[in-house]
Amino acid sequence: MTTPTIRQLVVSAAAALSVLPAGADEGMWTFEHAPLAAIAKRHGVQIDPQMLARLQAASVHVGASASFVSADGLMLTNHHVVEGCVARLSSATRNLAATGFVAARRQDELRCPGFTARVLLRTEDVSARIQAAAASAGDDAARNTARKAEIARIEKACTDDRQGQRCNVVSFYSGARYALYHYREWDDVRLAWAPESDAGFYGGDPDNFVYPRFALDAALMRVYERNGQPHRPAQHLRLAARMPREGELLFVSGHPGHTERLRTVAQLESARDVEMPIALATARAEIAALHAYAATSPEAARQAQSGIFGTENWFKSMDGEYQALKDAALLKAKRQDEQTLRDAYRQRGLAGDPWADIARANAVQDALTPQLWGLNFGYRTALARAVDLVAIAHERGLPEDQRLADFGDASLPDKERGLRAESPFYPALETVRLTTALERSLALLGAEHPYMRLVLQGRSPRQAAEALVAATRVGERAERERLLSGGAAAIAASTDPLIVLAREAWPMRRALRLRAENEVDTPIRRAAEAIDQARFALYGHDVPPDATNTLRLSFGPAKGYVSNGLTHPWKTTWGGWWDRADSFDQQEPFKLPARIDRARGKVPASTPLDFVLTADIIGGNSGSPVVNAKGELVGLIFDGNLEGLGGNYAYQDHTARAIAVHADAIMAALEKVYGAGHLAREMRQ
Amino acid sequence: MTTPTIRQLVVSAAAALSVLPAGADEGMWTFEHAPLAAIAKRHGVQIDPQMLARLQAASVHVGASASFVSADGLMLTNHHVVEGCVARLSSATRNLAATGFVAARRQDELRCPGFTARVLLRTEDVSARIQAAAASAGDDAARNTARKAEIARIEKACTDDRQGQRCNVVSFYSGARYALYHYREWDDVRLAWAPESDAGFYGGDPDNFVYPRFALDAALMRVYERNGQPHRPAQHLRLAARMPREGELLFVSGHPGHTERLRTVAQLESARDVEMPIALATARAEIAALHAYAATSPEAARQAQSGIFGTENWFKSMDGEYQALKDAALLKAKRQDEQTLRDAYRQRGLAGDPWADIARANAVQDALTPQLWGLNFGYRTALARAVDLVAIAHERGLPEDQRLADFGDASLPDKERGLRAESPFYPALETVRLTTALERSLALLGAEHPYMRLVLQGRSPRQAAEALVAATRVGERAERERLLSGGAAAIAASTDPLIVLAREAWPMRRALRLRAENEVDTPIRRAAEAIDQARFALYGHDVPPDATNTLRLSFGPAKGYVSNGLTHPWKTTWGGWWDRADSFDQQEPFKLPARIDRARGKVPASTPLDFVLTADIIGGNSGSPVVNAKGELVGLIFDGNLEGLGGNYAYQDHTARAIAVHADAIMAALEKVYGAGHLAREMRQ
Repeated sequence: MTTPTIRQLVVSAAAALSVLPAGADEGMWTFEHAPLAAIAKRHGVQIDPQMLARLQAASVHVGASASFVSADGLMLTNHHVVEGCVARLSSATRNLAATGFVAARRQDELRCPGFTARVLLRTEDVSARIQAAAASAGDDAARNTARKAEIARIEKACTDDRQGQRCNVVSFYSGARYALYHYREWDDVRLAWAPESDAGFYGGDPDNFVYPRFALDAALMRVYERNGQPHRPAQHLRLAARMPREGELLFVSGHPGHTERLRTVAQLESARDVEMPIALATARAEIAALHAYAATSPEAARQAQSGIFGTENWFKSMDGEYQALKDAALLKAKRQDEQTLRDAYRQRGLAGDPWADIARANAVQDALTPQLWGLNFGYRTALARAVDLVAIAHERGLPEDQRLADFGDASLPDKERGLRAESPFYPALETVRLTTALERSLALLGAEHPYMRLVLQGRSPRQAAEALVAATRVGERAERERLLSGGAAAIAASTDPLIVLAREAWPMRRALRLRAENEVDTPIRRAAEAIDQARFALYGHDVPPDATNTLRLSFGPAKGYVSNGLTHPWKTTWGGWWDRADSFDQQEPFKLPARIDRARGKVPASTPLDFVLTADIIGGNSGSPVVNAKGELVGLIFDGNLEGLGGNYAYQDHTARAIAVHADAIMAALEKVYGAGHLAREMRQ
Repeated sequence: MTTPTIRQLVVSAAAALSVLPAGADEGMWTFEHAPLAAIAKRHGVQIDPQMLARLQAASVHVGASASFVSADGLMLTNHHVVEGCVARLSSATRNLAATGFVAARRQDELRCPGFTARVLLRTEDVSARIQAAAASAGDDAARNTARKAEIARIEKACTDDRQGQRCNVVSFYSGARYALYHYREWDDVRLAWAPESDAGFYGGDPDNFVYPRFALDAALMRVYERNGQPHRPAQHLRLAARMPREGELLFVSGHPGHTERLRTVAQLESARDVEMPIALATARAEIAALHAYAATSPEAARQAQSGIFGTENWFKSMDGEYQALKDAALLKAKRQDEQTLRDAYRQRGLAGDPWADIARANAVQDALTPQLWGLNFGYRTALARAVDLVAIAHERGLPEDQRLADFGDASLPDKERGLRAESPFYPALETVRLTTALERSLALLGAEHPYMRLVLQGRSPRQAAEALVAATRVGERAERERLLSGGAAAIAASTDPLIVLAREAWPMRRALRLRAENEVDTPIRRAAEAIDQARFALYGHDVPPDATNTLRLSFGPAKGYVSNGLTHPWKTTWGGWWDRADSFDQQEPFKLPARIDRARGKVPASTPLDFVLTADIIGGNSGSPVVNAKGELVGLIFDGNLEGLGGNYAYQDHTARAIAVHADAIMAALEKVYGAGHLAREMRQ
């Protein structure tokens, strides 16, 4: 029996498809392959393809997502998307994050440095060209080079900076399909309205990823042409004439960044059973140590605060993923899908068994994981910086193709910028963090491991950390600068005890990482590509590709849910916002910004604030408009709940939800709270 | 070496005590052994013993809990405690549950039929008398009889109905201690104020056991003397001059019903791993079947509604206990305590190994559990009623000491009342419920089990249920009455297919129950008594006894918590109440009663509504007053959260919380919502 070509697989796609979860609103779909028939069947809603075309033309890529909401180029996105701009526009005397900002007139709008906006004009299938270019090449490496060269040619021919014309080739289904994306791009983007950070990020880290939620995470910018005139977009979204009811089907247009829905069950189980427990235990140890330190004095609490917030947030999101992977129903559905695909793959006699390849690589990974976490040097500790300094000097000395994967020429400037940045160094806090890192290493590697003998030299982790922190100068920005500029020679000459330690520790870590690259990352990537391509051959465009940071359409009804016994409504109200602050006695981070507090009586308490829907979203969807079946604006995506953190691997709609600011909340804020009625009028025109 | 007496064990109590969880506010303490020194040490709060004496005198037992709150006998308790009274006082033309009730004048107060109230005057240690009476008897049975007789003598000598003087002997630590409780009792108790059921039980079943919570679960009654004059209590609680802040230590005085804190780890693990999964699966099957039936028509939905609510509530509370038992920290603490006690027991050479006895009995129970759940006949199905009819006729024919434990003369009248009561019989719904019951039996017993062969006779569960339901008359009240009155002869003569089936099924179930009584219940009870008595010998009154439905003191700070990623405030507000209704679009069960809706603007939105504290409570604490360290009223216990449902077995204060109505909410309701300012004034005097 001969091996069939990928093409031949397509014939029995329909049979296999019948086992896909017909009930779920899964998918971040490309606009050209939006499942309109499935939507009509499942929801009884007929979508006019013209609506999608208009929605695409009004959707904007700003790194994250945004949309045009007026004929004069007013653009709606999240407060947290413009946060960097707000910070850069602030000064010692003008703290826009604290006060919020409204441009009373067009000429008061403030340009956001480095901010660009692009709109997807059209896409073009270039699969044949790229695959043909690669087909003639000899081996894997040559094919890769040929593909890259052809992609670069295509992109270059179509890009024209002076016209703001940008082109990108996007790869779908691991290279089973390539499309050329034509964009128009602007680099003059100005801030028109931003609420206070305390309103946009109300509830702070404790409320991050959770619902019920009370946050006005919205902002308005305006896109300008190079002639200084506002851009007049071909399409902009109009406010819905009637705001949605619970159960109404809604659509989300945005730029989800990255998913790994093709991870095999074995990979998910290994993440759940090997890596995540180690990572969670590490986070727990760090959180406990930081809290203990913070309890020693108010100044210690201040020093530890950002570390506590950061680590708790890391823990919360990782634990959300972990809980998702512990959900038997999620794994069961994954297992079924995988079995179907695997059976089809085998029945059609396709070469090899990529699932077995992944399982093999996975076993190596499981063995390496505790060592890699053991040869970790803490989060932002001076030791971790010392290791970075040593690693950069070492890798820079090698030809690029012999370096570790994340030390390519493209990555190094970022790493160096991080090391050059000013950052506070508190010896007592540093000792606590280093102690925790060493304790974790000891637990994972054991006392006899060469690294532990090297670092402890008979001392306890605490004693070693105290001695190292007392003697090192790596905490000083100038010393790091000196070591960076001095390169390998400066590193070799240093007698700083952390650098001395890092010089010995880096080769140990490097050897492990190299083994992981060769025996884990590469075979897994190759097998995943084979699976993804086979899936496309079987199902074609009926299954959406993994997210690629390009424009996608998601959909799902606005819908409350029950999670852990709590019944959550589909929306929250301004009255609920005031209650949240009152019920915490106006303590941080639940204290209301003064303007929101004063809005009592001006904004009716029952005015909607945030709401949830089942649409399939992920990081990058921040700022996505939510529209109804007519394409009218009803909300603005700004987060997903903890229950949805498994979305990287699988979609479920029982408790996973996208969280949006309600359009009524934005209009009430503009008209009644921020004195921005002129912007509201522009949106209503 | 001779076996030491229990007395000799006391000497080393202090050493063992040091391993008890010093950090936890565990305990439902008798007032005479309240841990004032531990409270002072842990919380820095000195409690005046006079405060406790006053609190005891103001605490009332009404089945559940209550307290005097005015000099004229006004008594505060929960709306759900007076619900039965409200129902009995209602008529076709006056639905007090729907409208709420306020007595404008004393003479308008409505007497609650059958309602009594009692106050604990003093307690007296009678351990020596009862133990002496038992000591002279020959064997276990004789000791038991002697104890019962002595208790009856003591109670009788002290009780005087005409004076409203009641006495009860209460057994603590499984008979290691006995106390005589002297009560004053009143039987003229009248309703003064009750809110609408929709306000008292706001959020219905979905919000039951959960927090954040928004419910005004409060009511006022008045206790009258036999001369028709209001009782003037020796003590009543006064409103706190300053309402509590988060973190403030508070006290709860009430009548927790029943705990099983001495269950061994093996018992808890067996409940978690054997019985609970079966029970939860049974509830899930029932819920799914009822929902499917309800979806067929509005009338079907109406018929199924009470069954759905009841089963979902059952599921929710059982799942809460189940989750608590899956909490590694809870089990770990239990295991430590058990090991300490077990080591002490062994080191002091006490006779036997009650833990091993329990483990042995437990193994038998694990084997019997699936069969007992398999020989279950559904919840309130006609089949279950048929089996009850057969069982009563059979057991009545036996001398009492040969009957199954729950068929004693004291239990039978209740069972018979249940069978005689009118209850709707919908054949289609009945078929669904019976089908589900038979499917569960089939799953647990297998098709070859004699019961399954008998009931199915080659048919599917659905076919069998249809045939049985179509032919039976057990659904008719009159037929049940006939069979009850006719006794064994009527049962034997019946040709009703459900009775015929029950005549065969009952002996199978009876044999299993009998084995469970002899090989599980009796040895476990005996071993548990040995453990409890040893614990008292070791720790004395420093560990609180299990709850006994008598007056106890609990304590703990008012405190918010984080559960499943959600950060919950220590209190909720009226504004939050309105938000909860608005955010559910005023849909049932979240629709506001009209009066509460109209209170917007009259009651400030930031007025506290409910709050949580860590005090150790359980069923029976409903209606307990919450007071501050001065003994002033600050709230009213009405529920515990899901996370606290493990409280039957163990206390934890991370996420388990008691839920109370805030005193400010009660006063706002009386003064601004219900036109009951005169009652509020009486409380403020």
